[in-house]
Amino acid sequence: MEDRMKNFTLDDSLLGRYERLIKEVVIPYQEKVLKDEIPDTDKSHAIENFRLAAQMLENGVCEEEFYGMVFQDSDVAKWLEAAAYSLYHYPDKKLEKRCDEVIELIGRAQHKDGYLNTYFTVKEPDKRWSNLEEAHELYCAGHMIEAAVAYAECTGKTKLLLIMCRMADHIYKLFIEEERKGYPGHPEIELALMRLYSYCKNEKYKKLALYFIDARGVDQDYFIKEAKKRKWSVWGGNGNSDKEYFQCQMPVREQKKAVGHAVRAVYLYTGMAAVAASTGDEKLKNACKVLWDNIVQCRMYVTGAIGSAYEGEAFTKDYHLPNDTAYAETCASIGLIFFAKKMLSLEIDSKYSNVMERALYNCVLAGMQLDGKQFFYVNPLEVIPGISGDAVSQRHVKPIRPKWFACACCPPNAARLLSSIGNYAWSIQENTVYSHLFIGGTLKLDDSIKGELKLVTGYPYDDTVVYLFKPKQQIMKMTLAIRLPDWSFDTRIMLNGRKADYQVKKGYAYIKGEFTKEDELKLCFDMSVRRIYSSNRVSANNGKVAFLKGPIIYCAEGADNEEDILSLSVKKSANAVVLKSDKLGGIDEIVIEGLKSSTIDTLYSFETMKLRSYDIKLIPYYVWGNRGTNQMRVWLPEL
Amino acid sequence: MEDRMKNFTLDDSLLGRYERLIKEVVIPYQEKVLKDEIPDTDKSHAIENFRLAAQMLENGVCEEEFYGMVFQDSDVAKWLEAAAYSLYHYPDKKLEKRCDEVIELIGRAQHKDGYLNTYFTVKEPDKRWSNLEEAHELYCAGHMIEAAVAYAECTGKTKLLLIMCRMADHIYKLFIEEERKGYPGHPEIELALMRLYSYCKNEKYKKLALYFIDARGVDQDYFIKEAKKRKWSVWGGNGNSDKEYFQCQMPVREQKKAVGHAVRAVYLYTGMAAVAASTGDEKLKNACKVLWDNIVQCRMYVTGAIGSAYEGEAFTKDYHLPNDTAYAETCASIGLIFFAKKMLSLEIDSKYSNVMERALYNCVLAGMQLDGKQFFYVNPLEVIPGISGDAVSQRHVKPIRPKWFACACCPPNAARLLSSIGNYAWSIQENTVYSHLFIGGTLKLDDSIKGELKLVTGYPYDDTVVYLFKPKQQIMKMTLAIRLPDWSFDTRIMLNGRKADYQVKKGYAYIKGEFTKEDELKLCFDMSVRRIYSSNRVSANNGKVAFLKGPIIYCAEGADNEEDILSLSVKKSANAVVLKSDKLGGIDEIVIEGLKSSTIDTLYSFETMKLRSYDIKLIPYYVWGNRGTNQMRVWLPEL
Repeated sequence: MEDRMKNFTLDDSLLGRYERLIKEVVIPYQEKVLKDEIPDTDKSHAIENFRLAAQMLENGVCEEEFYGMVFQDSDVAKWLEAAAYSLYHYPDKKLEKRCDEVIELIGRAQHKDGYLNTYFTVKEPDKRWSNLEEAHELYCAGHMIEAAVAYAECTGKTKLLLIMCRMADHIYKLFIEEERKGYPGHPEIELALMRLYSYCKNEKYKKLALYFIDARGVDQDYFIKEAKKRKWSVWGGNGNSDKEYFQCQMPVREQKKAVGHAVRAVYLYTGMAAVAASTGDEKLKNACKVLWDNIVQCRMYVTGAIGSAYEGEAFTKDYHLPNDTAYAETCASIGLIFFAKKMLSLEIDSKYSNVMERALYNCVLAGMQLDGKQFFYVNPLEVIPGISGDAVSQRHVKPIRPKWFACACCPPNAARLLSSIGNYAWSIQENTVYSHLFIGGTLKLDDSIKGELKLVTGYPYDDTVVYLFKPKQQIMKMTLAIRLPDWSFDTRIMLNGRKADYQVKKGYAYIKGEFTKEDELKLCFDMSVRRIYSSNRVSANNGKVAFLKGPIIYCAEGADNEEDILSLSVKKSANAVVLKSDKLGGIDEIVIEGLKSSTIDTLYSFETMKLRSYDIKLIPYYVWGNRGTNQMRVWLPEL
Repeated sequence: MEDRMKNFTLDDSLLGRYERLIKEVVIPYQEKVLKDEIPDTDKSHAIENFRLAAQMLENGVCEEEFYGMVFQDSDVAKWLEAAAYSLYHYPDKKLEKRCDEVIELIGRAQHKDGYLNTYFTVKEPDKRWSNLEEAHELYCAGHMIEAAVAYAECTGKTKLLLIMCRMADHIYKLFIEEERKGYPGHPEIELALMRLYSYCKNEKYKKLALYFIDARGVDQDYFIKEAKKRKWSVWGGNGNSDKEYFQCQMPVREQKKAVGHAVRAVYLYTGMAAVAASTGDEKLKNACKVLWDNIVQCRMYVTGAIGSAYEGEAFTKDYHLPNDTAYAETCASIGLIFFAKKMLSLEIDSKYSNVMERALYNCVLAGMQLDGKQFFYVNPLEVIPGISGDAVSQRHVKPIRPKWFACACCPPNAARLLSSIGNYAWSIQENTVYSHLFIGGTLKLDDSIKGELKLVTGYPYDDTVVYLFKPKQQIMKMTLAIRLPDWSFDTRIMLNGRKADYQVKKGYAYIKGEFTKEDELKLCFDMSVRRIYSSNRVSANNGKVAFLKGPIIYCAEGADNEEDILSLSVKKSANAVVLKSDKLGGIDEIVIEGLKSSTIDTLYSFETMKLRSYDIKLIPYYVWGNRGTNQMRVWLPEL
């Protein structure tokens, strides 16, 4: 199974717009942020930190202090990774030159022994590797390894790859050869090393990834002991003694519940799945499946968001999914997509790709303003201006997307995902091409199947997906395995206008054939507006309904509903009307018959509220918050 | 207008039980806690701290360190106050002797200049009055002043009163004569000084109370400046810069919203109302009315609880009343009752006494276990074991009452309120007796009206209240002003079986007469089970209903409903059946026809849940949590 990003050229009405936005706005904007060229936003200093580290190594001193988070380097890494993907599809000599310059700088910031981390080089030269809990050295290395592999894949240039192989070798020497104990506070290195291994085929990197996975939670008190020993802290205080926060409460193979910091959790699980896929370790595979099921069956918002609590940016307990205080970090849903992709490499089952699609079209897209310049870190399912962002328990819930963050993980993470979306849309195993996501574009096939596979669609708003074939020779002899989305109760599959012959296995339709350039394989989904209900164990959603059309979760926003969502209920039996609309970048709006209650002046009343008919307008969740501050709700009471 | 506690002898089926519990269990238990005689509970050390302070003064050293909160002294004060009330109605030589001994000890812990505070005397002798923000010196003084007045009123013994007059004089000298700037971080001294003034008629104490009220918020940065200057902190850190937390964001007369720490807020407002009632300050009175209305119209739970957020134990924003993460501290509702009482001394209006009753019979009574040995600090309106108390954002929400707290403010506060409930039930102005709460017992009248007024009732479960008269001479010439509760849509008032002649003014029925011992004035309330609805601005209660019968708010608890409350909805049109029950100390149970939804195994489903008829059992909120850990909900979905 191989990554498909390189071989897939996007031509998609919705995601194409995001891809262009990434190229034209987000990557240049983020570059400016990293270089501190954007006024009135949080200072980044990330590139400058590399310059200072280089100065330190070259002159023994540097002219300024390190500034930013201990993991500031990772912003540069994520930007380079996104830039690499963009450069592949949209060659841009100037951007590439600037990337090369940044890589040159990174090289100058690397120590002779391979070590690379500007926080330690500039600020704490004597404290390397003494604080795995907080200091994010392995995390930053992981992101830079990912950038290095991407840059090599996309530009053919291996300078950064060689830099990061030296860093990986340095880590290998420390943890494997010198038998240093410990594991990272923030997982990421595991999945990155597996990616490096896939590219370089150097067994060392797989061994190192496996080491970090095997070590975690075996000595559950590792971080507590480390904190006692090291006597220093990045954040002040005495370290975090919450083992679940770090997913080290027990060995990973024994873990049954997704706990702690949600991004850390899904990065870890992604690494575990990548190792399991590579080694065939059944126990590890099984742990991944159990953790996946726990997330999806008990701890995931309907938007594909995860992490119910601001405190620790964390998973909490089964069925605890508050809408208004949700943390639901964009990065956590991106991590969930990474996890889903790796699970698909363990077993083809639409339970993974259905969630991948849910998270992508809802929580992840919602993370970005339509203009690509503002970003949500937190993705609530209910917003009430005056309370959200203001009440002390909801300070983290912003009613509009802020420009940039001091902790800027989400924007570059979204950029690297959206600019490599082909990797998630497709996978190939021998003669079978798996179509996980319905994203328009052309996939070049050049292994055993030779030719091009073209997907034409107006998805996610149109219900038809057409696959066209352009064989290199006469035919493309292959199996096309297409996900049957869970929301489509009746999916028709037609080959050249007639019902196709196919088998269904774990949510995928397998169509085997010898396709020619005349063939047209067409899927028609049932894209009716659907009501979706929560388990009654989710207190926040009792008596409420959400709406979905195709992969898109809808919400009611004040801007379309006289600025008052809290007075609205949906009628149980009402039909939904779908209206094509040009607003908000082009969407399908849903109008549903509902009831609007009169607003009673008193806080409590013995009177029932008067109800009148009211047409409730719903918009896709991913475009909410693009029209200033106003109320928003995904789950609406149903009467 | 005078306090009625002394002259009222309780004979009430419900509150009588609590009064006995206070006398027989709570006061002795709390005494043991204060003296560290209860094993396996948080250590108090409060009496021991006084002993250490006395040693310090007598020997210049002491054998142990101070232990406990900076405001540990106030626990002793609140216990003494409750003991005083109890001693009045239930003379107990042994208890009185032990109280006298404690007072003796307190006297020995007082400095020659009148200063009294064990934290500073034992632990920080050089830092007196340097940290008004955190150190609670004025707060502890306030509570001890209240205890002193109560002890003098109830036992006639003035030793503690003289001690506390010396302390008040000490404070007067500092802030008035020496013109020291500042105001307390935790209000309480203001209302206490007004109480001392009412008892002693010494104008100095009123002047000092007024000083603290006038100073607050004029220099809004007082605490910030103090923190910079003092360079030490009780809690560590650099002080709390949140002005709203301390209600010092502006001068008190300009404040329009109830903000910050809820207990501090209502203690302050009580002091403001007491000053306004004494001075006739219209601006101050008006500020009190505006703040009252803001609490009751926008920031109060249906149980009479206040304080929506754990963070800062604080008020948050209008209409932000989450049920599951509520702070809703018992002490805050007790403070709300204090505030209501003082507002009634400013103007007779049932809008105050209705809330007083709501808070008393619901949030305050719920604070105590039926056995008097366990206490809620936090009073949520929804509890889901597995989440409540466990999810990181709900750690403060305990599903069962803990035994005692390191910060033990609530149990002794409830004890002093419940053992002096006569003060809240009645007030007298010239020839008018106001009956605010319907609590059975006998009120002795010995000013202009001479005789006894007896209230006979099975309230709050029975709908009839009878007033009987026992004139000292032939007749009692008086006006009886009786609150007409807001929940009774039809209250019949009969004198000797015939409709009485009365006028209604601001929710009170005024019955003027020359009553003899043959007269019987009887009120019959409409005590039907009522549905109560929230403004739709309260997101958490959209589509939901609560139930009330008389003054009692009901809830559904798992113990009566197959351990599953989240699956229940109430039918819109269903009638309620009331069942007398012996359980939980004797209650009226409500059975209401509802619907129970099948539990779907998946987190989200496109299917509507199957509903079947189900008789939902409701119990009074104040008895919830007496049968172990189980689900509880006040607001139920209504279909």
